[in-house]
This record gives sequence, structure tokens and C-alpha cells, in this order.
Amino acid sequence: MTVRQDCARLDDSDALAPLRDQFVLPQGVIYLDGNSLGALPRATPERVAAAVGQAWGDGLIRSWNDAGWITLPQRVGDRIGALVGAKPGECVAADSTSVNLFKVLSAAARIAKADAPGRRVIVSERQNFPTDLYIAEGLCRELGWSLELLEPAAIVERLAGGRGADVAILMLTQVNYRTGALHDMAATTALAHAAGALAVWDLAHSAGALPVDLNGANADFAIGCGYKFLNGGPGAPAFVWAHARHAGRFWQPLSGWMGHAAPFSFRPDYEPAPGIARFLCGTPAVLSLTALECGVDTLYAAEALGGMAALREKSVALTELFIALVDEHCAGMGFACASPRDARARGSQVSLTHTSQDGASHGYAIMQALIARGVIGDFRAGGAADANGPALPDILRFGFTPLYLRFVDVYDAVDHLVRVMETGDYRAARFNKRSAVT
Amino acid sequence: MTVRQDCARLDDSDALAPLRDQFVLPQGVIYLDGNSLGALPRATPERVAAAVGQAWGDGLIRSWNDAGWITLPQRVGDRIGALVGAKPGECVAADSTSVNLFKVLSAAARIAKADAPGRRVIVSERQNFPTDLYIAEGLCRELGWSLELLEPAAIVERLAGGRGADVAILMLTQVNYRTGALHDMAATTALAHAAGALAVWDLAHSAGALPVDLNGANADFAIGCGYKFLNGGPGAPAFVWAHARHAGRFWQPLSGWMGHAAPFSFRPDYEPAPGIARFLCGTPAVLSLTALECGVDTLYAAEALGGMAALREKSVALTELFIALVDEHCAGMGFACASPRDARARGSQVSLTHTSQDGASHGYAIMQALIARGVIGDFRAGGAADANGPALPDILRFGFTPLYLRFVDVYDAVDHLVRVMETGDYRAARFNKRSAVT
Repeated sequence: MTVRQDCARLDDSDALAPLRDQFVLPQGVIYLDGNSLGALPRATPERVAAAVGQAWGDGLIRSWNDAGWITLPQRVGDRIGALVGAKPGECVAADSTSVNLFKVLSAAARIAKADAPGRRVIVSERQNFPTDLYIAEGLCRELGWSLELLEPAAIVERLAGGRGADVAILMLTQVNYRTGALHDMAATTALAHAAGALAVWDLAHSAGALPVDLNGANADFAIGCGYKFLNGGPGAPAFVWAHARHAGRFWQPLSGWMGHAAPFSFRPDYEPAPGIARFLCGTPAVLSLTALECGVDTLYAAEALGGMAALREKSVALTELFIALVDEHCAGMGFACASPRDARARGSQVSLTHTSQDGASHGYAIMQALIARGVIGDFRAGGAADANGPALPDILRFGFTPLYLRFVDVYDAVDHLVRVMETGDYRAARFNKRSAVT
Repeated sequence: MTVRQDCARLDDSDALAPLRDQFVLPQGVIYLDGNSLGALPRATPERVAAAVGQAWGDGLIRSWNDAGWITLPQRVGDRIGALVGAKPGECVAADSTSVNLFKVLSAAARIAKADAPGRRVIVSERQNFPTDLYIAEGLCRELGWSLELLEPAAIVERLAGGRGADVAILMLTQVNYRTGALHDMAATTALAHAAGALAVWDLAHSAGALPVDLNGANADFAIGCGYKFLNGGPGAPAFVWAHARHAGRFWQPLSGWMGHAAPFSFRPDYEPAPGIARFLCGTPAVLSLTALECGVDTLYAAEALGGMAALREKSVALTELFIALVDEHCAGMGFACASPRDARARGSQVSLTHTSQDGASHGYAIMQALIARGVIGDFRAGGAADANGPALPDILRFGFTPLYLRFVDVYDAVDHLVRVMETGDYRAARFNKRSAVT
């Protein structure tokens, strides 16, 4: 039986433990939702305050030059890019994940139309994040293409053995937001390429969570989120990357002035900037980019301690511990692990399903009761069976950010879960009332 | 001859004078660039700090509900909407001006294709802001349509007398960014409608600068900028409006989850939200929206003093004074007013051209010399003659934000301009070295 003391010992010998001090974490909270919104870095309030008070307040319009605002998308993009295997100049930070996905899918579709005109299918994962599917669905509607949604195993089946000859784009999120299942980016990209399709990756749950090597995997396009494991703050700008082989070639419809070859020449004709800058569109969101830069810095602080590889090692240890503790302490309570038990196939989260003896799922209420105790994870509702597959269960999600979580936090979280179940607290009416954002 | 004392008297009797105290303005600066980046409201640092420290830092993911983050686009949108003649629920704040223009043009094009399938032309103004033209150009390329760029007078000619039968959309910025020329929105919209075209308005230089009545003008779609006269900070989110007659009908390609009828149901199929919310796409940029809300508040502070009508009256008085002072004090220095001299046809800025006796324009250097003296306006380069019209001159732009400018500021600005010219300061090499953002 694992006891709290065992976990405390793991913390004592954890070389990454000092990184936690980079964050402001509220008293009495065990934060297992950094996969949805990363915690506040200690440096952020002052840096944002300076951007507001000095750069904007005192510098006013002059700060576009003097404070370097105008190159923020490139600077922050390069910082993120280095964490995901992009070379300098290949990545920019701008807009939202959804908007960036629209850009890269549009660019990829244009390339596919030129290079392989018969291909008119985008393949994705059935449980991909809805906004990814909505954007792809909208684009397919515009193009007269179709979007095929498959379970991961069926994707291999769909693309292998010459059966992918109609597929233009394989669009995947590297780590599934529901299950935490992790795709092998290099192998899956190779599979797509062998089928003649382009590979577009969403790194929402992998950038800052585990080592990613876009160039090493030979991916085509990628986007990702700034406010999860990059700790950029609520609604932080996202990022976008294109492989150098596409950089001078693609066009995307959001042809705003910041993506122009000469934004301040005020010329009437659009001429896309060379390279990744053509993925920029409107004026950079300076305050949000400033916060994002602080968030990204927290990952660089791990560099001397082994960087992303060391963070991944701790992340795996945290999720392994969580699964082991749930197995040990929650047996017979109706929980099942909805994430891969093989750590190599799992991102930095663990999802549980709940089914009580009467067959009902109390996942929502259990999560609310946990949150009331200061253990913050989140709940994701399941869905009905449809043409693409069977019904999906409700899940309780627990994200494990190695930058600021301790092994004792994992122990305490499971301890609270046990108490929620043993006391039956979760049956209280207040925990069963749904709020706007679940 | 107008003397400084006359201007001081105008300030003494200015009922709006106390509104200046809402802003933090650096010592020694006369800020005539609020049409490019509005000044910092005094309330913003604290509100942004609270959004960072309390809502994000302490509230973490819970703040999507508890701090109302999730409805920020609607709340801020409604606040802006009420300033531009939108009804509650018709306007949202999100993304950038460029991205929003893409949305409304896409939506308008879709409606035009359904209602008037033969029409394949977007008409706009030749001197419209480049990003507007780039976005329209990109969309036309996708649709196989054409973009026609005309001078304002030619637009009337193009649409009147049945000659607009091929025009799908008239896209205009209400106040021209170069000249400050102001379109009559109601008359021009009526002209477009009479020709069978839709009217799409960019309010970048009019929202917060003068009374705008989108519903009164019967416009179809509108967008606008958050960081100019709305004082929302560098790269603040923009806003977007659709007339109620289109609200349930249109589709736009940026079909992200926040525009879904049920964003948190995580359903695989995109179903656009009823009304304006379908113009939302990705996760709201909370920190930037918080700053934007503070900026918009500064305009509401004018309500008890006559609101936008009173602000417009002061704005006109400021620009009239500036023109009169330049006429009086700068005669023979090579300046000419590039803005309409009739205040009814002018927004809240005045542009000057400069031509020295040898025919050269020293506009750039003169503006740099002014900025070095603390008088901050900006410079916009001209352009070569092209198929759409003759060469455009370089201009010096001076924006007049009635919320925080005094009549003595106008006097002092012109006084500095006179000194720059009389001393020949502007001929110094350092004022002739171009920076990235001019």
C-alpha cells in the first residue's frame, strides 16, 4: 500500500521540485486542471503591469517600435517553437487555436488541391476536440469535401494498404482531450505521407507537456494552445507552425496586414510575407502575448534540469502514481481508467469514468464535490452513439502539470476522492446543479 | 489671431474637460494618435491586475463561471454596441478587426450568393485601410469574384442609375484612415441597397469618435477596432455586428466552438448559435477583453454630459481649431489640409500634406521632429499611381480624442509644428531614419 510518506519522499528527491515556486497557487487548492487553464506564473502580474503601465501608458504608440511589440508574435512564436521541434522563424503566436486551425487547414487544402487534385477527404479522430471538427467541417462544406471521423485504430486501417488514395489531410490532436491518449506523431505522419496525405497536428495538450519534435516527425502543419501547458493565461493567443518545405508556397484566406510582406507600406495589393509570417493576420494582442511569454518562460526554467524530457519523466511518474493510487484506494467505487494504462501512449492527464452499482454515472457530481474540497479537475460529458461509433461515457479529467504538482498532491487528491465516495457527499443537490461551463 | 489664452478659455468652459482625468497621460506629451492607439485609462491597470491576480491566479479554471469570463464577448460587445446603434444582443467583441472582416464578408457573400446569384463584385474605396482590402481580395480570389477600388465620388457613380447590378457588397470604412473623410452611412447604405447590394461597414475610426447608428442607417454588417477611440489597449479585441434581419441566417467559415449553439455540449456537429454569437470562434481573450471593457467605460463616463453627441461636438471644435491654427500660423510652410474642411464630412482627425519649395515632402521627418518634442501624431506614406487613380501623397496624421485632449493641447501642438519648421530641426539625420512602424 502506497502511503503519503512514500509520496513525500518522491518530492524530496525530485530535482524539478523547485520549479513549483515559479507559480502562484491558491492556498488549499490541488490544481489538476492545468490541461485546461495553466496556473498563474509568479512573474506574470509584474510583466503585464509593465506592459500596461509603462509600454502602453507611457510609451503609447511609440512602443510598437520601442518596446518591440511589432515582433512579439515572432519572438513568442520562436520561444514556443523551440519547445516543439520548430526551427527559429518557423512558428508565430497569434489569434486563437480555432482561427489558426482554419489557416493551416486552408493552406493544406490548397496544397493538396494543387499536388493531388483528386483527394477530397479530411480524416480525423471521432473524439477530437469539437472546435477542431467544427472548423474542418466548415472548410469541407466550403470545398465540397468530406470529413471522416474514426476511432484511432480505424485511422491506421483507413490509410494503410492504398486505401487512403482519396485522403487529402489527416488532422489529429496529438493528445486526446478526453482520454489523454497520445498519438505517435512520427509514425502517424509517416502513415499519412505514405498514403499521399498531409499531416496537420493540434498540439493543444502536448506543447509544454511532453517532448514534441515537429521537424523530426516531418509533420506538415501544426497549431497549439497558449493557455494550457504553456501557462499563458485565459484565452492566451495560440501558435502556428508550417514545415519549411511549405513555407514559401501556401496561401491562407485570412490575409490581414500583419501577414503582408511589408505591413507598413500600406500598399493596396496583398503580397504574403515570406515564411511563417504569412500566417499572421490582424494587429498582435500585445497584453495577451506578454502574459503568454511569461508562461512559456516557466518551461525554459526547466532547461538546466533536463528540459522537456525531464518534465515528461515527472509527468509520467505523476500519472502512474495517480492510476496506482486509484487502483489501490478506490477499488469497488465504480471508477475505471479511461486513459491508456501504458504511459508511452498517454499524455499528461488521466481520465476516469464512473458507474455506480445501479448503473448511473455520478461523474459530474463527484467532480463538483472534489472541487468543493479544493481538488480541481474537470468533467467532460459523454455523447450518444452515432454513425461513427458507440456512445461515449462521461469522464472525470485530471491533468498533471509537472512544473507545479507534487507527488503528495496526487496522494491528497486521491484521498479526497476516497472521502467524497465514502461520505456520499457528492449526492448533495448543490453538486448536481450544472453550471454554464462544465 | 488666435492666442493660447483663447484656447485656455475654451477649456475653462468645456463641460467635458473632467473626462481627461480618466486617463494616464505621460508628462510632456501631447497625444494626437488616439486614432491609432487610444491612451491608457486610469482604471485599466487595477482591473487587469485583478483579472490576472484574482480571477486567474486564485480562481483558476473556476473563473469561467465565477468571474463571468465566458460571457465577456457578449457583455463587452453589448457595451460597444450601444455606442454604435446596435441593440442588446447584436454585437460581440472577439478576435481582430481583420478576422472579423473576414467573417462578415464571408457571411455577406453567402447571403448575396443565395439572394442575388449573378452579383460577383465587391466595391470599396481605393484608400481604404490595406487590411480591409487584403481580406476582401483574398475572399474574392476564393469566390472567383472581383474587388473594385474607387474614389468616394466614383462609388456613387458606380452604384447609381442601375449600374450596380453586378455588385454584391459595398465595403467601406466609415472614416478614412488617411484623410479622415467621413461617409454618410445612412445615405451610402441606402445607395447600396437601392443597387441591390449589401453594405458592410468598418467602424475602426468612428466607434467612440462620433455618433454611429447602425440600425438607424439600416446597415447590414459592421466591424470595428477596440484599440483606437475605444481605448482598449494594444491589439485589443475587435467587435462585430449583424443586422437582426441576417442574424439567424448567415454562416461564416470560422466555425469555432464559441460560436456553437451549445459550446460545452462537445457535440461533433457544428450548429451555429442563434444570433450574433455565431460570429464567435475560439476561446475569448480574457485579459485583453478586460482591458477593452475599461476602455469602453471611459466613453460611458460622458453619458451624463451629453454622450457621443457632446463628444462629437468637442471633436469637431478641436479639429476646426487645429485647421484654423495651421492656416493662421503655418502659412507658407508647405502644408495643405488633406482632410475635408467641412466638419460634417470629417471624422476626428486632420491630415496634412507637406511640400517644400523644392517640391520634396518632408512629412516623415517633420513628424519625427514633432514626436521628439512630445507631440505624437503619425505619418502615413503615400503611394504610386495605379490603375485605380493618381499617386497618393505622404500625410501627417493628427487624431483628436475629445475624451482627453484640451484646446490648449491643440494650440501647443501647432506651436511646436511652427517651431519645427522655423528652426529646420526636422532636417536632422536622426529624424530621417525610418523605423519599422512608421
